[in-house]
Amino acid sequence: MREETGNLQSARKSVRLLDATMRDGGIVNAFLFSDEFAKNLYETNVKAGVDIMEFGYKADEKLFDAKKFGKWKFCKEDDIRAIVGENKTDMKIAVMADVGRVDLKRAVADKKNSVVDMYRIAAYLNQIPSALQMAEYCKSRGYETALNIMAISKNQESDLKRALEEVGKSSVDVIYIVDSFGSLYPEEIRRVSEIYLEVGDKYGKQIGIHAHNNQQLAFANTIEACACGVNYLDSTMSGMGRGAGNCHTEAMLGFLKNPKYRIEPALAFLRGFMKPLKESGAVWGYDVPYLLTGLFNAHPSSAIEFIKNGRDDYIEFLNALLFME
Amino acid sequence: MREETGNLQSARKSVRLLDATMRDGGIVNAFLFSDEFAKNLYETNVKAGVDIMEFGYKADEKLFDAKKFGKWKFCKEDDIRAIVGENKTDMKIAVMADVGRVDLKRAVADKKNSVVDMYRIAAYLNQIPSALQMAEYCKSRGYETALNIMAISKNQESDLKRALEEVGKSSVDVIYIVDSFGSLYPEEIRRVSEIYLEVGDKYGKQIGIHAHNNQQLAFANTIEACACGVNYLDSTMSGMGRGAGNCHTEAMLGFLKNPKYRIEPALAFLRGFMKPLKESGAVWGYDVPYLLTGLFNAHPSSAIEFIKNGRDDYIEFLNALLFME
Repeated sequence: MREETGNLQSARKSVRLLDATMRDGGIVNAFLFSDEFAKNLYETNVKAGVDIMEFGYKADEKLFDAKKFGKWKFCKEDDIRAIVGENKTDMKIAVMADVGRVDLKRAVADKKNSVVDMYRIAAYLNQIPSALQMAEYCKSRGYETALNIMAISKNQESDLKRALEEVGKSSVDVIYIVDSFGSLYPEEIRRVSEIYLEVGDKYGKQIGIHAHNNQQLAFANTIEACACGVNYLDSTMSGMGRGAGNCHTEAMLGFLKNPKYRIEPALAFLRGFMKPLKESGAVWGYDVPYLLTGLFNAHPSSAIEFIKNGRDDYIEFLNALLFME
Repeated sequence: MREETGNLQSARKSVRLLDATMRDGGIVNAFLFSDEFAKNLYETNVKAGVDIMEFGYKADEKLFDAKKFGKWKFCKEDDIRAIVGENKTDMKIAVMADVGRVDLKRAVADKKNSVVDMYRIAAYLNQIPSALQMAEYCKSRGYETALNIMAISKNQESDLKRALEEVGKSSVDVIYIVDSFGSLYPEEIRRVSEIYLEVGDKYGKQIGIHAHNNQQLAFANTIEACACGVNYLDSTMSGMGRGAGNCHTEAMLGFLKNPKYRIEPALAFLRGFMKPLKESGAVWGYDVPYLLTGLFNAHPSSAIEFIKNGRDDYIEFLNALLFME
């Protein structure tokens, strides 16, 4: 599925920009986005030429207290429809499902009764069989599917390759590189992309990338993967996402050369919604503790806690991080 | 002068990390660093294994009002000595001189009477003859020299190559790639690095890189250049520098594999000095207007002004930027 990869002066028609602001950003604010925010983001993404908008998670209300989370933790059909109507646009709608956090057989309607186009299944490497079962189920109900293999920086390449072979044989449409800890350097991203793209070539799959900004490499890693032939590119407005956040949608809209991508709608959204959201106290983005968790390939949870507690004793944080390792 | 370039698991002895916090960061606060800051930064850099510390500019007091700038705009010998004594350490001391902003014949003592080790001459491509004259003068007084060719993203490659040939034939020790506008992508940095390294190989020169963070690519571009064989790597604490700032020294200390580099002293300095400096109102670092000046290869001055005025009408800013272009 790899096409000519193009260059900095060309547009590649196979590229798909996926805005995951309400999904990865939702982890920051417990998915408590107002309907006005959701509606405006939807309209912004349509105008900006974004190919896919991810609304949130499909999580099980039996497992998560609906009083503690906004509705985008659950992404009910009616809630999405309240924003998008019948979604009579070229932009597709995605939701994410984590392995073990939702009973898809209860939660997922037939595609003909849904405005959702794509289910993205997120799984750790050791959950691939469960993830594939979920993906096959979604495919059987008529949806496009992606499988996001998380935290690959913690896995051995040989294990990853074996897992990718299994995913290759499945009906999954897109296989995602996920640098959950923001620990991979561009040089490594090129090597990992090559591994995924080989499987993509072999089995006719698209490859995607979801980068984190712990070391301020999310944008660099995303465009480097793109240059290698990775087509599905995740980003969020202002980089909103867990901890250090993600690749910025506005940076991607500026970078991508296909004239359908427009940065102006994103700039208006940043001013109208993202800046106020940040000023209201939502905390995300690069900071020293994330550099350290990224550097030592650790989950950002301890860094999030450290920042939340207003601490700046970075050396103590580093020492705790190294001891934990 | 290109050696084996190594990989992510190896240390390359020819790498030189240059901390330019007080020079590029000085542009942010008019060089008004306290002696306590300077002294602590010096000690931090020594402990962290930084190879070269740049103290500021060698500017002419006849051209700049000494009441409007801190002393590091002028870097008098006695002021540097007040911080470093005889500098009985392995770390070298650098100062920068801009073409046309200093009379080096009056300002530069013989090396035997100075603790300065290196003069870095900053010039636009059309100022190379003047810059070379300055560099040759510094060399004749016994100093190491670097020539920083600024804003190369505005120049034609063919002109750049001709200029590099001239610099190659001079006595300059290090030739610097300077992405003044933060507009170059890693892919371009690799191409530019190759152009410089060819000249370096031909004439026995070291190559350096000074990156800016307008598109959040300063760290990525620096480590990509390093992987190509560029040895002199500029960075600043917390990325402090004009506009979007620079590659972060702490990120480089984490990235570089030579065991002489230690991140802990930098972490203590961030806590003790950089965080308070930022909290006191000094403004630098990535922001939307810098993404736009970087994207359109423009000087960041309009973005700095925009942010200073508390504006967030990004679309009007973009429109003005495109019209100016």
